[in-house]
Amino acid sequence: MSLTRRLAAEGIGSLFLAATVVGSGVMAERLAGGNSAIALLANTLATVAVLAVLIALLGPVSRAHFNPAVSLVEALRGSLSWRDTVAYVLVQVLGCCLGAILAHAMFDLPWLQSSAHVRTGPGQWLGEAVAAFGLILVVLGHRRSQDAAWMVAAWIGAAYWFTASTSFANPAITIARSLSDTFAGIRPVDVPGFIIAQLGGALLALLAARLLFRTQRAPAVEGPTTASTVAAPGRLESRADHG
Amino acid sequence: MSLTRRLAAEGIGSLFLAATVVGSGVMAERLAGGNSAIALLANTLATVAVLAVLIALLGPVSRAHFNPAVSLVEALRGSLSWRDTVAYVLVQVLGCCLGAILAHAMFDLPWLQSSAHVRTGPGQWLGEAVAAFGLILVVLGHRRSQDAAWMVAAWIGAAYWFTASTSFANPAITIARSLSDTFAGIRPVDVPGFIIAQLGGALLALLAARLLFRTQRAPAVEGPTTASTVAAPGRLESRADHG
Amino acid sequence: MSLTRRLAAEGIGSLFLAATVVGSGVMAERLAGGNSAIALLANTLATVAVLAVLIALLGPVSRAHFNPAVSLVEALRGSLSWRDTVAYVLVQVLGCCLGAILAHAMFDLPWLQSSAHVRTGPGQWLGEAVAAFGLILVVLGHRRSQDAAWMVAAWIGAAYWFTASTSFANPAITIARSLSDTFAGIRPVDVPGFIIAQLGGALLALLAARLLFRTQRAPAVEGPTTASTVAAPGRLESRADHG
Amino acid sequence: MSLTRRLAAEGIGSLFLAATVVGSGVMAERLAGGNSAIALLANTLATVAVLAVLIALLGPVSRAHFNPAVSLVEALRGSLSWRDTVAYVLVQVLGCCLGAILAHAMFDLPWLQSSAHVRTGPGQWLGEAVAAFGLILVVLGHRRSQDAAWMVAAWIGAAYWFTASTSFANPAITIARSLSDTFAGIRPVDVPGFIIAQLGGALLALLAARLLFRTQRAPAVEGPTTASTVAAPGRLESRADHG
Repeated sequence: MSLTRRLAAEGIGSLFLAATVVGSGVMAERLAGGNSAIALLANTLATVAVLAVLIALLGPVSRAHFNPAVSLVEALRGSLSWRDTVAYVLVQVLGCCLGAILAHAMFDLPWLQSSAHVRTGPGQWLGEAVAAFGLILVVLGHRRSQDAAWMVAAWIGAAYWFTASTSFANPAITIARSLSDTFAGIRPVDVPGFIIAQLGGALLALLAARLLFRTQRAPAVEGPTTASTVAAPGRLESRADHG
Repeated sequence: MSLTRRLAAEGIGSLFLAATVVGSGVMAERLAGGNSAIALLANTLATVAVLAVLIALLGPVSRAHFNPAVSLVEALRGSLSWRDTVAYVLVQVLGCCLGAILAHAMFDLPWLQSSAHVRTGPGQWLGEAVAAFGLILVVLGHRRSQDAAWMVAAWIGAAYWFTASTSFANPAITIARSLSDTFAGIRPVDVPGFIIAQLGGALLALLAARLLFRTQRAPAVEGPTTASTVAAPGRLESRADHG
Repeated sequence: MSLTRRLAAEGIGSLFLAATVVGSGVMAERLAGGNSAIALLANTLATVAVLAVLIALLGPVSRAHFNPAVSLVEALRGSLSWRDTVAYVLVQVLGCCLGAILAHAMFDLPWLQSSAHVRTGPGQWLGEAVAAFGLILVVLGHRRSQDAAWMVAAWIGAAYWFTASTSFANPAITIARSLSDTFAGIRPVDVPGFIIAQLGGALLALLAARLLFRTQRAPAVEGPTTASTVAAPGRLESRADHG
Repeated sequence: MSLTRRLAAEGIGSLFLAATVVGSGVMAERLAGGNSAIALLANTLATVAVLAVLIALLGPVSRAHFNPAVSLVEALRGSLSWRDTVAYVLVQVLGCCLGAILAHAMFDLPWLQSSAHVRTGPGQWLGEAVAAFGLILVVLGHRRSQDAAWMVAAWIGAAYWFTASTSFANPAITIARSLSDTFAGIRPVDVPGFIIAQLGGALLALLAARLLFRTQRAPAVEGPTTASTVAAPGRLESRADHG
């Protein structure tokens, strides 16, 4: 699979994911008449549904990361070259930002916004770390590639409710949400705290996965990752990892 | 599979789909006590559930399009003859209209109505294009035929919330909704704008799918489609495409 | 599989199904603060979930009918002997009634009640016929036995909302609901109208299924059904039909 | 699979399960504006989603019990040694309690609490027995290991609504909930009644499963269970049983 096509898949997936997160938040808040629980419920169901579809649809093309934390973990374990990782992350961030703009355009809102939604503090950072930890554990530990779609989606859906931060769990989505002064938004100044927590949780999950799942996997690639290693047939295509 | 039986399947599926969209909207609005978010949530869940069932049930018979935009795309890529496409579209429109009437009959409403629900403007047209784009991408890009049911349903369910137009994404359903002055309705005068946007999104998705998925598919049929091409075993039956 | 064990499975399944329908209605009405849409939403989700579980769990034992309309259709098409059909129906009705009583016991309500909930009129009868028609179509037309659980559950879930009668679609459940003066109840005097409509829809579906699915099935058993026909290996066990 | 790793899986799963039950209850109550039905709906969906993910993810490692009632039943039927059972139960209780504390930390609540939520009486005890009965029936009776995740989750989700006790169905979760004075809490003094009812329902289900499913299974292990029996390949790994 050429890098161009994989990046196209990452870009389209990231765009639709962010458009759903932001757009369904706008729709839900407009209709919910002030009841935030109903708004978050609709926001959750839309996110879960689109995430599962996008992973099943684009996983065979790009492995459907849509998430810099996932791409970083895959790079660290030797499943994605560092060159591809940089390209993935850039496209993910760009796609998510365009997705937020698309949502604004659909709802006749100003295309470029800056969120005033305060999301900060140790409780929310802990929530982001937990959400990202579980997400990476699912990405690294699921057994059948066709289960990744529903497992990732269900984890994110649950974490929307059981973490205090409503589980952004994705640096690219976090940046895109800072561009939307709507239900799903986050103040730009609060973005770094969220991203640091997400990456911390993701790295911890990489260690935990090695302990929990180690004998059930092919041995990790030792030494520096080379393009040829990553491009080897059967590795890139063997599973649809996600986020 | 004879054309008659395929048309029967398209008709029954379109009828139940429209009856669900319109009927669950009536029920939801009656019970929701003015909270449109709860009404749309119920409307969404009923639509998602019935769409998945109908695709799984009738896909093996007619490929379960239930949607002129899907049939048109299949004709353009040589998977459905133009003669069959015309018949499919007529039956889909007829089935959806009968479905709206059935919903009215069940809820003791006047059988024939004309909607006064305003749905227009660039934001909503963009929404319809996005919803149809994603739908066709799912129809053309899914890998396992048994996944079409949940993937199409989940996409539509998400798009009910993240598009400003609540994702009609189907010209036949759009026409049928114009005959219902209820929660799910649309003014007849707003129908053409929606259909043009849906077809535009669908055609764009046909191009995008060729880029994203081209090496993973059998080569597209070149030249004019003949009835014998379409009737070739293994093509018509190989996958359950949907809408 | 002995008849005793099959009847035990039908009884347990019918009991849990009715307990869920009635019990979740009580819980939902108590908590929903007068919003019937939220109450019906919770009632729907609980019913859908338990129906899918019970079909997957008990289908391999008794084929998981839990529904006299399904057993009757199976008898008419020669898949269940008339003797077994009578036993199935009796156990289904008994199990459902015990399920309603169990729900009352759990919620500290009088065990024996008579519903005052009016459910009558042509619109509701049409709704019951439509709901039962679709249910039987799913039972007879699904291709993979493992799909029956989610397909039956999703159909019933959708029909809770798109029919005016909230889709009882089951004579045994209808009788049991008449014993419960709660959210899910129905006046005893309204029961016959519902059951007649359900059986009418079911019989119509038997005809429709022969047209839609006939070449995809083993030929229907002609002539009178004998116990030996029904007991033939591969027939009784080949699929998990449901209701 | 070493006992250490299995216990790690039990601990992590129990922790996330309890964190979800407690955390989503806090979030739901904060947002729902006093409507308990919406709060319980969100609480249910989060629990169902995380339970399915955890079972699919950790079932292959530890069989994903997360529930002393399940481990006890597996010990009684000779599928888990008594030594391992004791270790499983201790880790489950510890994990669940840490999960409640984690939820408190995420929501900036006091880490250690004592619930004042009254949950007692014959109706609720009956509810717990029914919920545990059905859970064990699903654990022992499901046919395909990959179905355990959704079947267990769907059963628990339904039982949240159709039992008067909202289906704790798990002694470890019950103890952990007594440490949380939030939506999901239970007074410490009410814990023994719940646990006794759960174990009673579980034991009854063990008997019922032998009647319902006996010819479809390998013969039960007779005589005392030894470590070597349990460690035999093909038994421990053959299915992912859950709770």
